[in-house]
Amino acid sequence: MSIQSVRRKILKLIPAGAVGAFVAACSGAVQNGQNKSAQTTQSTTNSPATGETITLRMQSSWPVKDIFHEIFLDWGKKVEAMSGGRLKVNILPAGSVASATQLIEAVDKGTLDGGHAFPAYWFGLNRAASLFGTGPSFGMDAEMMLGWIHYGGGQELYNELIQTKLKKNVISFFHGPVPTQPLGWFKQQVKAPADFKGLKYRTAGIALDVFKDMGAASQFIPGGEIVSSLERGVIDAAEFSNPSSDEGLGFPDVRKVLMLQSYHQPVEMLELQMNKSKYDSLPPDLQAIIKYATMAQSADFTWKMMDRNSKDLETIEKNGVKVFITPKSILEAQLQAWDKVIAKESADPFFKKVIDSQRAWAKRVASSRLEIMVENKTAYDHFFKEAQA
Amino acid sequence: MSIQSVRRKILKLIPAGAVGAFVAACSGAVQNGQNKSAQTTQSTTNSPATGETITLRMQSSWPVKDIFHEIFLDWGKKVEAMSGGRLKVNILPAGSVASATQLIEAVDKGTLDGGHAFPAYWFGLNRAASLFGTGPSFGMDAEMMLGWIHYGGGQELYNELIQTKLKKNVISFFHGPVPTQPLGWFKQQVKAPADFKGLKYRTAGIALDVFKDMGAASQFIPGGEIVSSLERGVIDAAEFSNPSSDEGLGFPDVRKVLMLQSYHQPVEMLELQMNKSKYDSLPPDLQAIIKYATMAQSADFTWKMMDRNSKDLETIEKNGVKVFITPKSILEAQLQAWDKVIAKESADPFFKKVIDSQRAWAKRVASSRLEIMVENKTAYDHFFKEAQA
Repeated sequence: MSIQSVRRKILKLIPAGAVGAFVAACSGAVQNGQNKSAQTTQSTTNSPATGETITLRMQSSWPVKDIFHEIFLDWGKKVEAMSGGRLKVNILPAGSVASATQLIEAVDKGTLDGGHAFPAYWFGLNRAASLFGTGPSFGMDAEMMLGWIHYGGGQELYNELIQTKLKKNVISFFHGPVPTQPLGWFKQQVKAPADFKGLKYRTAGIALDVFKDMGAASQFIPGGEIVSSLERGVIDAAEFSNPSSDEGLGFPDVRKVLMLQSYHQPVEMLELQMNKSKYDSLPPDLQAIIKYATMAQSADFTWKMMDRNSKDLETIEKNGVKVFITPKSILEAQLQAWDKVIAKESADPFFKKVIDSQRAWAKRVASSRLEIMVENKTAYDHFFKEAQA
Repeated sequence: MSIQSVRRKILKLIPAGAVGAFVAACSGAVQNGQNKSAQTTQSTTNSPATGETITLRMQSSWPVKDIFHEIFLDWGKKVEAMSGGRLKVNILPAGSVASATQLIEAVDKGTLDGGHAFPAYWFGLNRAASLFGTGPSFGMDAEMMLGWIHYGGGQELYNELIQTKLKKNVISFFHGPVPTQPLGWFKQQVKAPADFKGLKYRTAGIALDVFKDMGAASQFIPGGEIVSSLERGVIDAAEFSNPSSDEGLGFPDVRKVLMLQSYHQPVEMLELQMNKSKYDSLPPDLQAIIKYATMAQSADFTWKMMDRNSKDLETIEKNGVKVFITPKSILEAQLQAWDKVIAKESADPFFKKVIDSQRAWAKRVASSRLEIMVENKTAYDHFFKEAQA
């Protein structure tokens, strides 16, 4: 085991304390300084929010070192700051109350007030859940998928799935957008679709079937167990999510080839969910704070990921990992595989309803974005590879 | 004048009423339902925010029909909902108190509590202001520029510019991201850089010099006056911002060619500014609500623009406008022109400091984004132009 690997394992042992310290630092005392008489609008007469403090007990699906856990903490900080201490967010580490795939049950029952996860984790309950993050992209990036959630009917379809079909007492707020998931971590460079034949490969959700169609022995393993599975040879290769998550989880210790870009999962979103009765019981201003904090987190996450992913990609390369871009032949094989998976799964009417809604949104929006947005490569190459290299 | 043109002019005459109705609809009564005794954390005992209502008197820089004005109203709705009625946002139409380029003075003096604008509007006070929205892209899109603002030192440089160098009592919050500005609206298709020779062309900020270098007689005209200037032949061609703004302002009535994509302004951001003393006087939770509402608006704006831009682009084409993608020869000529503009303007040390900061961020972040993000065109073409066309 390498020094980095030991260091990472030690860091993974201190989650609870770190979370506790964060909660202590963020929870302000409830203030009650009211002044009902003054008519002017200066701050000294505008008292802070008042009322009892409500503590939200929520659980993460991520190892504490993962950047997704950090994003959940960031969301909690925003909620606490905006509520003036009326909401306290107590974020438990992954597995404290429920396993990642059981989190939705704990939130449904009210054992937890809420959680943070990927929708593909409910794939076992209904395969259509996977379309909210691990489906075909139809030419969308994750921001366009979030557009579909908010302006294309996606939120209503997810509510129908979770609340009506699965009968969960849960309300969900999507954010992200998660950058394109890499093809993943391999023993050697992947050069052609045939390299997947017989490969024991970790991925998630319906993307499992895309790689099966390409000949891989694909399987799902939770995020926190992937690196040890690679180390022990249980699997040959794996993808998890992004340079920062992958670096933090220790992938560079066990595989020395990282393949970037793929069509198996280009549009994943993060899901903040709450027990619906709990959410409905809150006053409207606190409901608005919870809702809009996820929107704020969506933007903040995008910007933070740019900073961190770029730094962590440099670190990965410095640690001896070779980074390659996935060849087009593999991207095209994935698209062919998607056609078969979509045709098969669309036998289920609700799955087809969701697919059709995504397809209609993508046909209009992805098309116009391709027309409107200028590509960045020509400008980047001009400024950094030619004129002033 | 066409029927559409008449209709648009009528609609422009009813801004004040529309704004007033919105403000009335959004401003909730101040509620005071407190309960200090109960210890449990249910909603009925968790009272809404209390205190006097503070009304923020703010002004837009946009015609009331423009989607940017709508986004400012959206921000106000979020602030009012999250503050539980303690903050009321009174949004005045463009020009009510100050012209677009004078807005910062009115906010500085406290004549207005805040405003909504583009940073390039302060270009006359200091040319570096233009780098916050109309500068060279260095291969960034507007989301990457917002990443620089929040995680790359951009906010600190803007504070230095506005608060220290220009001595304005103003605090700014950036959001957007504004999609790539088009090359614009022309009498006929633009096919080569030489087509700009002698052309009377409207653009903004430092991009004016890029087109001047290409031989155009470029000039700045405020958004609300561009269409009439095209109609009267004061200018030959113009760009403003995006399909929804351009359609709303009536461009299709006066020009029948729209050229999409350009490197003159691919990274513009919107600026929500407030009088700094007013902002500092607010309690911390209301400050947090104002700040995070701009972040939430950044995400919400992105999604809404996908929906609206794609619909409005269809409307534009239905109304007989021919839409073309700008040829690469023009994009390359713009990049060459940028080299000269940057070299000239960098004689000013502060301008150079901002440029250098953007360049360092772009070199790292734009590079890694190009590596990480899979391109959408191959997938889009597969699903919509080949397999299931």
